[in-house]
Amino acid sequence: MAKKDKRPARPKAETPKGFRDYFGAEVSERKAMLDAIGQVYERYGFDPLESSAVETVEALGKFLPDVDRPNEGVFAWQEEDSGWVALRYDLTAPLARVYAQHRNDLPTPYRRYAMGPVWRNEKPGPGRFRQFYQCDADTVGAPSVAADAEICAMLSDTLEAVGIERGDYVVRVNNRKVLNGVLEVAGLLDPADPQAHEAERGIVLRAIDKLDRLGPDGVRALLGEGRKDASGDFTKGAGLGDAQADVVMGFMQATRDTAEETLAQLRALVGASVIGTEGVDELATIAGLLAAQGYGPDRILIDPSVVRGLGYYTGPVYEAELTFEIMDEKGRPRQFGSVAGGGRYDDLVKRFTGQAVPATGVSIGVDRLLAALIAKGRVAHRGKGPVVVTVMDRTRMADYQKMATELRDAGIRAEVYLGNPKNFGNQMKYADKRESPLAIIQGEDEAARDVVQIKDLILGAEIAQSASLEEWKANPAQTEVPRGDLVATVRRMLGDA
Amino acid sequence: MAKKDKRPARPKAETPKGFRDYFGAEVSERKAMLDAIGQVYERYGFDPLESSAVETVEALGKFLPDVDRPNEGVFAWQEEDSGWVALRYDLTAPLARVYAQHRNDLPTPYRRYAMGPVWRNEKPGPGRFRQFYQCDADTVGAPSVAADAEICAMLSDTLEAVGIERGDYVVRVNNRKVLNGVLEVAGLLDPADPQAHEAERGIVLRAIDKLDRLGPDGVRALLGEGRKDASGDFTKGAGLGDAQADVVMGFMQATRDTAEETLAQLRALVGASVIGTEGVDELATIAGLLAAQGYGPDRILIDPSVVRGLGYYTGPVYEAELTFEIMDEKGRPRQFGSVAGGGRYDDLVKRFTGQAVPATGVSIGVDRLLAALIAKGRVAHRGKGPVVVTVMDRTRMADYQKMATELRDAGIRAEVYLGNPKNFGNQMKYADKRESPLAIIQGEDEAARDVVQIKDLILGAEIAQSASLEEWKANPAQTEVPRGDLVATVRRMLGDA
Repeated sequence: MAKKDKRPARPKAETPKGFRDYFGAEVSERKAMLDAIGQVYERYGFDPLESSAVETVEALGKFLPDVDRPNEGVFAWQEEDSGWVALRYDLTAPLARVYAQHRNDLPTPYRRYAMGPVWRNEKPGPGRFRQFYQCDADTVGAPSVAADAEICAMLSDTLEAVGIERGDYVVRVNNRKVLNGVLEVAGLLDPADPQAHEAERGIVLRAIDKLDRLGPDGVRALLGEGRKDASGDFTKGAGLGDAQADVVMGFMQATRDTAEETLAQLRALVGASVIGTEGVDELATIAGLLAAQGYGPDRILIDPSVVRGLGYYTGPVYEAELTFEIMDEKGRPRQFGSVAGGGRYDDLVKRFTGQAVPATGVSIGVDRLLAALIAKGRVAHRGKGPVVVTVMDRTRMADYQKMATELRDAGIRAEVYLGNPKNFGNQMKYADKRESPLAIIQGEDEAARDVVQIKDLILGAEIAQSASLEEWKANPAQTEVPRGDLVATVRRMLGDA
Repeated sequence: MAKKDKRPARPKAETPKGFRDYFGAEVSERKAMLDAIGQVYERYGFDPLESSAVETVEALGKFLPDVDRPNEGVFAWQEEDSGWVALRYDLTAPLARVYAQHRNDLPTPYRRYAMGPVWRNEKPGPGRFRQFYQCDADTVGAPSVAADAEICAMLSDTLEAVGIERGDYVVRVNNRKVLNGVLEVAGLLDPADPQAHEAERGIVLRAIDKLDRLGPDGVRALLGEGRKDASGDFTKGAGLGDAQADVVMGFMQATRDTAEETLAQLRALVGASVIGTEGVDELATIAGLLAAQGYGPDRILIDPSVVRGLGYYTGPVYEAELTFEIMDEKGRPRQFGSVAGGGRYDDLVKRFTGQAVPATGVSIGVDRLLAALIAKGRVAHRGKGPVVVTVMDRTRMADYQKMATELRDAGIRAEVYLGNPKNFGNQMKYADKRESPLAIIQGEDEAARDVVQIKDLILGAEIAQSASLEEWKANPAQTEVPRGDLVATVRRMLGDA
């Protein structure tokens, strides 16, 4: 019989499901991007805000407790002194709470930006994690669409600041009010009886939200009788007549070569609708403000085909799209697509205070934008490892540390190998894992002659792959210099790299 | 009878108890400090790590589930697919999990730094919050005390990099092994029977940990029969005889003018103890390495009076103290005190893998160090508000936006007032709340003459406080310049500020 093991089981070294860790360059690259974004936001007068990661479920809204455990989509738990609390699932709900709580101390309008992790209790999948970064900028308390125009201009500046070239992106602007006008013309929205046709409008909104995925024909089918998908499943449509459906389709396809032509097209579509005309006027104001500041259609475009979020926002809606192609998983080229979106939502704070407060803002998809920068080679070289000072004689540690200190004092990233120095091969493997550009070597012989060897590890790796025996023997990757020339030589070699 | 209000109650706009939000300069100043710290850490070859905020309770350790709800001190809850999970309460426990999980992919030694919020489910108090920042640097897998010396040097560099001048701080180094040697000499630790005298050693460790608070006499009393505090409460002592207590007290009071003298004193105290001698040798090695790198006793000191954490760490222990005075709440001067501490803990990873992995690291008290910088006036001026372009004529919004754009393109923080422009006084109040240095004004008259008024709000505020009527009339705080000179004038005026 096997002896029973009485030791307590060891804990598993694992993150909870759907969580991950970020190492070295992953952290640095994201930080560099967020720093560049923050600089643009600051220049526009936006102030940073870091709200608490934990909120009361009541303040978060959206996920109100209607069952024993109100954690549908959020990570929530109960505290004796605060009741149900949860990790924030975005940066907008906390902004509403912060503004309502501190509105007497905050300037109005209040321009704020926020960057940080949010948590979603959703099924994790490939590339989908339960903790991820968001990066938002919002203006609270500014009713004028000048605030929306400003955020579109800022978004354009931001994309260029992080390394997306002009021509590789476009910010598209639409307006929910224009859609409302279109719905009015199509007989689906009656200003005198706003509740009527609510069900059909819901189907219409869901249908146009699928324009990207289903294309115009698919959306058209959903506006009419319905649509059968590839698997044979049938989705019931809104039951619109041809004339009604034409009006809605006309809205999404109203984009023309210039803002003027597009606006004229929309103005014709919304006809006598008051809300629709207001929406077209707002778009015209935005286009005018942006043109005056030099943001032409090469950067920001009035484009009614932007339909994402039209169901959520109450006025202007905007989306930034990267227009260059990348290869998908199957090696087929496709447009990179959306990296940021936002719009105006005028009743966010109302649930706290009873007063409607106008607000407009944008959220950047941090992971997607970072992926785009990496795809375009716009992040700093990943191999920024330290210069490694190797240890040939452990009794001379102080000398090696002194070399590292001198290098650091010259602003060069450097470290002494602190593992067991016995096996020199391990030191080289370590330097390789650290992506070190150079290794410093000083054994007994070199110390006696007051020199150091500097090994170029990048060149060394290249030579190892392709060198002839003669090249190998010549060993151009290793240089001997006087000890006193260490810093100057390293600096020159790194500069060359 | 009052009519019953049937509207649902509005949610309270409040953070959960013990949490807070950070605004504007609070965020920027902390970020600037952490960025400066990160740069030093990078230069020493440390790599950033951002682990997940949520960990399994099992992996966090320390707070193992022994009751229904294992949230003693942590925020914990149960997930269907992960069991009990919790928000991390520090950055060391996650490091142990990360290293155990990824050790095959990580270099050894692994130098990493981490900065971010941690959460404690403790009673909040004045200045004590349930979410706060930590900033740690650790070296995992380096058995040599060269790793400890390196962290002490890095800590010294870090303090100077963020703005603490040399002479205003000292890093003190002690060693748990020396204390073990002292306990051996005092007859409280028997290498042949390590369990014996455990209770007395516990009392001794707790007593010396109170040196700062109770002073030598208080500690001495606790080493002997016990101590009665001001309220009359009696704390039982370790019951040491005079000779035993003398040895322990001698350890804490062994600090001399030079490292050599202190080490000689310690060497005499530990006598023939093997572990004690090893500890003194380690301190001698650290002192030697640091001296060779130029870190003299004006920066890093061998100091056996550092006792905080001696119960937790297994080898060298270090602490950074700010030596300048500040005023306490009652206006009395006191030393600022400790802002960072750390040491060697060699069994952190063992609970996961069964193998002991040497580790040493430091944690900076982010809030305390930031408070010190603010007290010393070493943070960038807080009034970095934007230039505010006021709106005198709302139909000319595009012209105002263009001014802001030009200023931003010149790298100047600027914004257009986006509230209701009707009341000019409100615009000035807004600029004041934003701590704006300058306001730009262009009404109908100025537009016709193609000029702008630039109002110096900082000078204006000074004049408003102290000016005579003549000075007031001369209005030196307001300048009229040609529209074309806007950017150059603003730049000059901000440069002067």
